[in-house]
Amino acid sequence: MIPRYSRPEMTSIWEPETRFQIWFEIEAHAMDALVELGVVPREAAKAVWERGGFDVARIDEIEREVKHDVIAFLTSLAEHVGEEARFVHQGMTSSDVLDTCLSVQLVRASDLIIADLDALLAAIKRRAFEHKMTPTMGRSHGIHAEPTTFGLKLAQAYAEFERCRARMVAAREEVATCAISGAVGTFANIDPRVEEHVAKAMGLKPEPVSTQVIPRDRHAMYFATLGVIASSVERLAVEIRHLQRTEVLEAEEYFSPGQKGSSAMPHKRNPVLTENLTGLARLVRGYTIPAMENVALWHERDISHSSVERMIGPDATVTLDFALVRLTGVIDKLLIYPERMRRNLDKMGGLIHSQRVLLALTQAGVSREDSYRLVQRNAMKVWDSDGQLQLLDLLKADPDVTAQLSDAQLEGLFDLGYHFKHVDTTFKRVFGE
Amino acid sequence: MIPRYSRPEMTSIWEPETRFQIWFEIEAHAMDALVELGVVPREAAKAVWERGGFDVARIDEIEREVKHDVIAFLTSLAEHVGEEARFVHQGMTSSDVLDTCLSVQLVRASDLIIADLDALLAAIKRRAFEHKMTPTMGRSHGIHAEPTTFGLKLAQAYAEFERCRARMVAAREEVATCAISGAVGTFANIDPRVEEHVAKAMGLKPEPVSTQVIPRDRHAMYFATLGVIASSVERLAVEIRHLQRTEVLEAEEYFSPGQKGSSAMPHKRNPVLTENLTGLARLVRGYTIPAMENVALWHERDISHSSVERMIGPDATVTLDFALVRLTGVIDKLLIYPERMRRNLDKMGGLIHSQRVLLALTQAGVSREDSYRLVQRNAMKVWDSDGQLQLLDLLKADPDVTAQLSDAQLEGLFDLGYHFKHVDTTFKRVFGE
Amino acid sequence: MIPRYSRPEMTSIWEPETRFQIWFEIEAHAMDALVELGVVPREAAKAVWERGGFDVARIDEIEREVKHDVIAFLTSLAEHVGEEARFVHQGMTSSDVLDTCLSVQLVRASDLIIADLDALLAAIKRRAFEHKMTPTMGRSHGIHAEPTTFGLKLAQAYAEFERCRARMVAAREEVATCAISGAVGTFANIDPRVEEHVAKAMGLKPEPVSTQVIPRDRHAMYFATLGVIASSVERLAVEIRHLQRTEVLEAEEYFSPGQKGSSAMPHKRNPVLTENLTGLARLVRGYTIPAMENVALWHERDISHSSVERMIGPDATVTLDFALVRLTGVIDKLLIYPERMRRNLDKMGGLIHSQRVLLALTQAGVSREDSYRLVQRNAMKVWDSDGQLQLLDLLKADPDVTAQLSDAQLEGLFDLGYHFKHVDTTFKRVFGE
Amino acid sequence: MIPRYSRPEMTSIWEPETRFQIWFEIEAHAMDALVELGVVPREAAKAVWERGGFDVARIDEIEREVKHDVIAFLTSLAEHVGEEARFVHQGMTSSDVLDTCLSVQLVRASDLIIADLDALLAAIKRRAFEHKMTPTMGRSHGIHAEPTTFGLKLAQAYAEFERCRARMVAAREEVATCAISGAVGTFANIDPRVEEHVAKAMGLKPEPVSTQVIPRDRHAMYFATLGVIASSVERLAVEIRHLQRTEVLEAEEYFSPGQKGSSAMPHKRNPVLTENLTGLARLVRGYTIPAMENVALWHERDISHSSVERMIGPDATVTLDFALVRLTGVIDKLLIYPERMRRNLDKMGGLIHSQRVLLALTQAGVSREDSYRLVQRNAMKVWDSDGQLQLLDLLKADPDVTAQLSDAQLEGLFDLGYHFKHVDTTFKRVFGE
Repeated sequence: MIPRYSRPEMTSIWEPETRFQIWFEIEAHAMDALVELGVVPREAAKAVWERGGFDVARIDEIEREVKHDVIAFLTSLAEHVGEEARFVHQGMTSSDVLDTCLSVQLVRASDLIIADLDALLAAIKRRAFEHKMTPTMGRSHGIHAEPTTFGLKLAQAYAEFERCRARMVAAREEVATCAISGAVGTFANIDPRVEEHVAKAMGLKPEPVSTQVIPRDRHAMYFATLGVIASSVERLAVEIRHLQRTEVLEAEEYFSPGQKGSSAMPHKRNPVLTENLTGLARLVRGYTIPAMENVALWHERDISHSSVERMIGPDATVTLDFALVRLTGVIDKLLIYPERMRRNLDKMGGLIHSQRVLLALTQAGVSREDSYRLVQRNAMKVWDSDGQLQLLDLLKADPDVTAQLSDAQLEGLFDLGYHFKHVDTTFKRVFGE
Repeated sequence: MIPRYSRPEMTSIWEPETRFQIWFEIEAHAMDALVELGVVPREAAKAVWERGGFDVARIDEIEREVKHDVIAFLTSLAEHVGEEARFVHQGMTSSDVLDTCLSVQLVRASDLIIADLDALLAAIKRRAFEHKMTPTMGRSHGIHAEPTTFGLKLAQAYAEFERCRARMVAAREEVATCAISGAVGTFANIDPRVEEHVAKAMGLKPEPVSTQVIPRDRHAMYFATLGVIASSVERLAVEIRHLQRTEVLEAEEYFSPGQKGSSAMPHKRNPVLTENLTGLARLVRGYTIPAMENVALWHERDISHSSVERMIGPDATVTLDFALVRLTGVIDKLLIYPERMRRNLDKMGGLIHSQRVLLALTQAGVSREDSYRLVQRNAMKVWDSDGQLQLLDLLKADPDVTAQLSDAQLEGLFDLGYHFKHVDTTFKRVFGE
Repeated sequence: MIPRYSRPEMTSIWEPETRFQIWFEIEAHAMDALVELGVVPREAAKAVWERGGFDVARIDEIEREVKHDVIAFLTSLAEHVGEEARFVHQGMTSSDVLDTCLSVQLVRASDLIIADLDALLAAIKRRAFEHKMTPTMGRSHGIHAEPTTFGLKLAQAYAEFERCRARMVAAREEVATCAISGAVGTFANIDPRVEEHVAKAMGLKPEPVSTQVIPRDRHAMYFATLGVIASSVERLAVEIRHLQRTEVLEAEEYFSPGQKGSSAMPHKRNPVLTENLTGLARLVRGYTIPAMENVALWHERDISHSSVERMIGPDATVTLDFALVRLTGVIDKLLIYPERMRRNLDKMGGLIHSQRVLLALTQAGVSREDSYRLVQRNAMKVWDSDGQLQLLDLLKADPDVTAQLSDAQLEGLFDLGYHFKHVDTTFKRVFGE
Repeated sequence: MIPRYSRPEMTSIWEPETRFQIWFEIEAHAMDALVELGVVPREAAKAVWERGGFDVARIDEIEREVKHDVIAFLTSLAEHVGEEARFVHQGMTSSDVLDTCLSVQLVRASDLIIADLDALLAAIKRRAFEHKMTPTMGRSHGIHAEPTTFGLKLAQAYAEFERCRARMVAAREEVATCAISGAVGTFANIDPRVEEHVAKAMGLKPEPVSTQVIPRDRHAMYFATLGVIASSVERLAVEIRHLQRTEVLEAEEYFSPGQKGSSAMPHKRNPVLTENLTGLARLVRGYTIPAMENVALWHERDISHSSVERMIGPDATVTLDFALVRLTGVIDKLLIYPERMRRNLDKMGGLIHSQRVLLALTQAGVSREDSYRLVQRNAMKVWDSDGQLQLLDLLKADPDVTAQLSDAQLEGLFDLGYHFKHVDTTFKRVFGE
């Protein structure tokens, strides 16, 4: 997490002030529950809510001595609250505060990411409908295959990010739990009803069984989900990088006036945003394994997960949030060139219609193997001619072909519109409209 | 995937025969749909179902020439079916067959893994209830913390694997789609109704929008889920390895008569099964990143994902299946030693009750900080005495403590049962009973 | 490791017969040393060498009972040797045999991979000199940058794989150690001179200090090295995939007569080998982390590393070996199209010379910033004209430019040969000639 | 990289001031070489060295407009230098500056890490000699195996970190190269002698062949090496965590006066530093894969590696540096308890001598299999007695044993000193003394 790849909306979730404020709320809500249970006096809870506060610098100072952040926080809090502070944290253990706080932070991060995905989906949808019927080359293996539309390309991205959104909602559910269960999760010194109260107040659900800590399989699933979403970001970014290649140039990242593409070559307009997204995806993916290694804590807990989460908690969420917002901007302002798409479609001398000829020959009674050979032998000549020969011409001149198909039939097989008759079906499946 | 860590139930899903059989079914069901649409003659479909077949060795032979597995399969199929075979695969592309087949295989693998998880959950539950109230040491950081019960440990594992089961069900959903959409997913040469028919026949749902291939974010999510489940396997395995340590020895893997623990040291009984599970978890986790790297295919598809999936498809599912079954066996036959648990509980001279004393002092009006210092100064003497001193004795002899708490009150704070009053609550949460 | 991506030269290293044969040699050599030390009778060693043998099926059978592979092997060996077999394995522990055997296997695998790299280097070198001065487009960000030669591209690959070779030699060194040090590495029951003897006999060095096992940081470094080499394989593979794109088509994988590129589209010639290499690279990289997780074994050893190594030992070496041989074949037979390279060079209306104009303006006294603006404003027009406008024409028509540079000077800046004056220097650096 | 896990020595390498200062030096040294080659006037180089400077805030401001950091830097530099600035960066490309700078930073980071390793090695060595002959339990699988010494444990760690040091030196070599080769590495507009001059001035070697960028296999190897070293850190950390377990307690992290182990349990002294190191190791390992994914840049370069390196460059080096220093502190002040080690050695009723008995029986003429059975049947009784029975007693009472070995012979087999006769050999191998 570095400023260059961060948005304040997300970084603020991970700042000390935010963390300590959440800690405070957890402790104060816990006291409310303890009051109801008759464990601590009502005035103590009142004092905490009214006079409660903390001082980040002071907490740092205390922590340097006691080497324990929650104790440092509680001491600072006590300095604000006064004598009634001795009822704070009653029967709780540090992890009750730390883990519930992390849940709140990850939930907030999820909400931002879900909002990012919504904005991205809206941008993709707008451009998809704009280019619903724009013919463009469909490529497999980087080689021209058959025609598709640019809208279909974006419909695919839409469907993929809609899945990502659903996964993110599920990941949010995974981590939205609260544990106030004491030193080894037995509730020995704290009633389970405190946990229920705090959970509700913080927008969480009680963790069914915790062991000082909330189990880390939840967090592993969370970070793995971020890794998958990042991989989908990479996919769309790579698509745009390909489309912007000099020889293809069917689309281009917006290039602002005043921008410089290269310190040495004034002619350059590079897809730097999507290249950047490719790198960011690698980072977010990389955090997956450490999160999974965190699962096997020793016995009721060890603290090895903590350093990992202090780093990847912010790193993964901030980076993915930034990446999603950047990708939305790229899609929103993407320069799309239908004419070049058309020119590229024509580049291979009609080879992209080879399958239709194959099928027509089959329908006309030629065996699949013979049909394939007939088309391939003509296609390879076109391929080797570098756009100088046209498949249609060669087929018309091939007696084995013309024995089966008339010129008019052959010409009909080279119609572009034929390929787009089901675009509506797919759009309806993806967008419901 | 090696025989040592494989079960035939899972490996058979990945054998050539199975794959070709699924291919056959996809092609044949597609023909049925094409018959209904009037694209191919009814007799052709009939011929395929009746005379259809394939020969694995023959397919291999053909593939060596054409370097394309689906074409090799279709050729072998044609040799069985005869002339009507030219209607097979009409308008389809290889990936229609390959990807739909992979979906079927992953769905079947999921079903096995879900069944494995059910068996594991049953074993854990049985042992959890057996030891619901067996007192055992709760440890944080490998250090004695406070008492818990062995049943609670297992309840935690149960809840974790129940989450794993829910994740596996979701992962199954992710990959249970069918694509029969042609060369670039436009349905140019095949009606979407064929996809719908085949999907239904094969127990899948139509992929809303495919691009020759089913998008690989689905598979990434699938393998990431396996990685998380493997991490939970590791957690329980590590717990057992710890419990079997010579100095702890609270539980032990079953050691069969005739088994030898070491070629050199005849006295050894090692937790080799759970150590093995730890290693297997590393493997399954390791397949996560390659699966995520598969997402960003170029344009409508490139084939880089294929080699990855040919390896990790079997490797990840076979290894996790084996691990889950092995873990179930370990739990099922686990030797559990309540007496040693009890002895270990007593090892630290009563230190495990330090929090209760802290809380009692706080309740008696001492500040949290002073209470902590009072208890800590006595506790450290016990810690350093190596089990020779008892905390209760020292507290009774500390005038600052006895000024607040009577001997009787102090003794009451060392009651083990106190810690177990909420075990029922947790069991109800976890097991619903 | 599956047959499709395996070569018998490498798989044979990992077969049971090979493993047991290495075990046998280790045990027999150890006996020789024990004879010299007077610990076992000379006849016993003689009996082992002469009558020694094993039976894979019998070993499997015994292992099913004793659940310990080395004990099973020793039992089978004893059945061949007879009574003198009781002197075998004297003072040794299983890991002495297992770990030293793994070292031998990894060393042999290294030798194959080094030979693979040598063959690859030879192929790259041959093609590099063949195309030393073939002009081709240099691209950054996928966008035309400035001219380079195809030979330089290959020289880069050569230098990279030469580094990979050096790394592989270092990795071989890392794992070429022998441990015969007993149950916890103290040589309690076996003299260190046995280790020295066996090490020498097996082509290894004694492990300075082992702890029943050879430390796994060695193996982690080994597999990490394979991961880096695989990444270099991916780099060259991705280069070729880019060059084969329809719109670029400057090079192409050899397409054999009879080969079929697609089941549906008879015109296709796809870079399937290099796409496959991309996937194989992901796999080899993926084995890196499990190997690193193997390092932190518990105390003197736990056996969690074993299952990981049983899988990734073969998987990583077999896959990388296969990938290197495949890549060598691709380079060797690569179809290279200098004419299309030339045509692509001309595609951008001379924009690729923009830097030279920038520098000439600077040299003529214009500030860097102004020079940049002057060139950029003309370059962007060319960029937007899609190859219709020529940069040279526009510059000649720009009075701010012509105020500094004459037409003749401008024309001189568009000379292709200018870019290749240091090719010799680089070739000398890389190939020493 | 967060302050909590950072040392200023390392973070300062990655601060903007440092980076721009290195950029400045590269540009200025390049000018010197260009002066010698007669390309730029001597006064221009003089002006740069004398008036050269930059302003971080100003650079940020310019970058916001031009979206290119090197151009922003050059503009800021020009504002300090004046008119002569137009000769700066002549014929260079941004990556010449960026990549050479990264090399300098990674080299400096390497030097810090090597120094860290030296300090760690010194600490380990001191403690190793201190406890060279301190008997302690050797454990395999977490189970008592045979005796070793605490010094041998540390000797193993010493040898491992010495290997890590050698690897770090090699990794430093890998990245210590300089590229000043222009837009696609052809030296079209800059003489290779500039590169040679700058390389020497910055303590680097010229990159034999670059392609605008220094090839990223170098960096992949670098970060992979950090990942391996981190794994070795984890290994030693895990060892200490095990030794500090309540039931083992043979060593303990230093616990400072005033420190609090738990907010709830005043008795706790937890191995929090080594648990922390375990987590930090996961992080450093996690950066390995993104670094490897950076290798396959497109054509002569794409910029996807940049974001990865901006993050993991600092993150990996800062975290590993911090971890090594922390580990050195832990080892330096480690509390070591020889008495408890002795007590643990005695815990298993003499089982740890089982192998010697096995060997003695074999030597006395019993077959290996029978010897194993004889010892195992007595050992299992001791194992099940929980330290109540002594193996020596049982053996003396077993007529099948006493038929072979006298009481005196049996007693001799239980001598601890027997195990340590080769400690000197190992120490000589490891420490050379």
